[in-house]
Amino acid sequence: MEISELGEFGLIDHLTKDLKTVNSSTLRGVGDDCAVLRNKDTDILVTTDLLLEGVHFDLTYVPLKHLGYKSAVVNFSDVYAMNGRPRQITVSLGISSRFTVEHITELFSGIRLACELYGVDLVGGDTTSSRQGLVISITCIGEAPAEKIVTRSGAKDTDLVCVSGDLGSAYMGLQLLEREKVASAGRKDFTPEFGGKEYLVERQLKPEARRDIIEALDAAGIVPTAMMDISDGLSSEMMHICKDSNVGCRIYEDRIPIDYQTAVMAEELGMNLVTAALNGGEDYELLFTVPLHTHETVSKIPGVKVIGHITKPSLGCAMITRDGTEIPLKAQGWNPLKKD
Amino acid sequence: MEISELGEFGLIDHLTKDLKTVNSSTLRGVGDDCAVLRNKDTDILVTTDLLLEGVHFDLTYVPLKHLGYKSAVVNFSDVYAMNGRPRQITVSLGISSRFTVEHITELFSGIRLACELYGVDLVGGDTTSSRQGLVISITCIGEAPAEKIVTRSGAKDTDLVCVSGDLGSAYMGLQLLEREKVASAGRKDFTPEFGGKEYLVERQLKPEARRDIIEALDAAGIVPTAMMDISDGLSSEMMHICKDSNVGCRIYEDRIPIDYQTAVMAEELGMNLVTAALNGGEDYELLFTVPLHTHETVSKIPGVKVIGHITKPSLGCAMITRDGTEIPLKAQGWNPLKKD
Repeated sequence: MEISELGEFGLIDHLTKDLKTVNSSTLRGVGDDCAVLRNKDTDILVTTDLLLEGVHFDLTYVPLKHLGYKSAVVNFSDVYAMNGRPRQITVSLGISSRFTVEHITELFSGIRLACELYGVDLVGGDTTSSRQGLVISITCIGEAPAEKIVTRSGAKDTDLVCVSGDLGSAYMGLQLLEREKVASAGRKDFTPEFGGKEYLVERQLKPEARRDIIEALDAAGIVPTAMMDISDGLSSEMMHICKDSNVGCRIYEDRIPIDYQTAVMAEELGMNLVTAALNGGEDYELLFTVPLHTHETVSKIPGVKVIGHITKPSLGCAMITRDGTEIPLKAQGWNPLKKD
Repeated sequence: MEISELGEFGLIDHLTKDLKTVNSSTLRGVGDDCAVLRNKDTDILVTTDLLLEGVHFDLTYVPLKHLGYKSAVVNFSDVYAMNGRPRQITVSLGISSRFTVEHITELFSGIRLACELYGVDLVGGDTTSSRQGLVISITCIGEAPAEKIVTRSGAKDTDLVCVSGDLGSAYMGLQLLEREKVASAGRKDFTPEFGGKEYLVERQLKPEARRDIIEALDAAGIVPTAMMDISDGLSSEMMHICKDSNVGCRIYEDRIPIDYQTAVMAEELGMNLVTAALNGGEDYELLFTVPLHTHETVSKIPGVKVIGHITKPSLGCAMITRDGTEIPLKAQGWNPLKKD
């Protein structure tokens, strides 16, 4: 059977069905942003990402330092998405012969900068040669008090659905970078045209994990009922939460936070803005649900927006458009196992 | 600067020099078989391995199930090498389009079998497409009581140097498989000639981690002063322990455990047997040091052999040959970053 028939999540389901755990420290395995290991009253969170040149990044326009930074930060984001704090990472690199020590030092300087800014220790890894291109595999270990862990499965009917930041900008940054790459082909004196769209480029090349939101929620005394980071797009992640929590949801098109530059870029490219915000991916914003009674408190947190609410499962997952139409959500998120 | 000028360890040293840690839970970072994270009185061990098709494995003769099994076991071996017990793994796969669901299921069945036999839980990972063949990145998490952790840096003058099992057989298995691959080129009716050398093939394709030795040492009340698993060859690992412990060593050629099949194969190939045992690599046996007074006890453990002793650092690292000559040890271990 072709792997593309199953897709990433289908393949994972297939490979991990009937998977049993035997260690008492294994609290939660496959199926959330991180695995959860319990050690006394502290939970250890583990998450990992594999990034391959030509699939996840294009060194034509991604500076190595940015790549290192982003590779680390996307892992931190998974830990924050469980309401944890990232503490350690391991970094494995597969390096093809076209890379020099200076290149790898540059890549590593980005990883180290991210570690420094987020207070994470680099504790190990593996380094080897690669026949084709750069391979980056990072595993992040985080921790959280056992009672503070937030999974994808705790959303309840009437909960509010919230997101941080704005959506679709990283995707538009990618479109912009790809456009300039095409425009630059074969030209030596080419200067890419990013004027007025620096935010989009930065969102694509140097995303941040929302530690600030996690800390603000904590300070406000709010523990979300469910949470994920948005890496595959709002629509896909919302459906994950609803499936794992056995609930439905309604989100409101006019509540989805979108940056002005994202809107301008979508207009320029003739793309549907809401589609980009729903399915663009790589936002690394937090999607979370909170009890209805926290409405006033959560609304006051800078960078957080209430975009909808959780419903009974029978109502399914849908977006209410500006004209009041109900459209079922679809998980059109980026599928890294799709056919080229 | 070309990466091959620095080599793997040189590059790692270069990238991780001045690396500071900020989290109180980070007990030990880069530089041993595992990182050590402390959580109350239990230490968490973390190790990771990146395996790339064409560099670490050749699917011409490596069955996918064996590959999965070995990929998991080599990580378990790193945890045992710190005197810990492996508990969880994450598995990340990069899959190129020539692989089917059946292929990946086969690979995974080997990983799951290893987990089952060693009591390890598979708790997460990442799955993506690859442009560059199969990529396998496994991170293993283990644990040990804080007072039981064994690093590379505790060997002391007069300690005994011990190894488990026998050395050089996995390397000879690789030579055999490579020979049969060459012989089979372009032939459809080819049957590889492994008669009488099954042990070598098994050592290469399906190594085991020495949980039995760790349990036997524990039962005998012996905590090694230093320990590593032998993945790059006895010579390289012995020098690691001596460097990290600031000691020297003498090992005796006639004490190095070598299987009969290894000797026969070396003879057939006209290779130096001791060189294969010293530098062959992929043995996944344990190399450890114990206090002199445990001599009688350690000698009685099945599968353990005393091969030498630790000296003052000024004496350096050397092997005493059968005819009494002292030869300095050299780290000729497999360098995955060497030029092709």
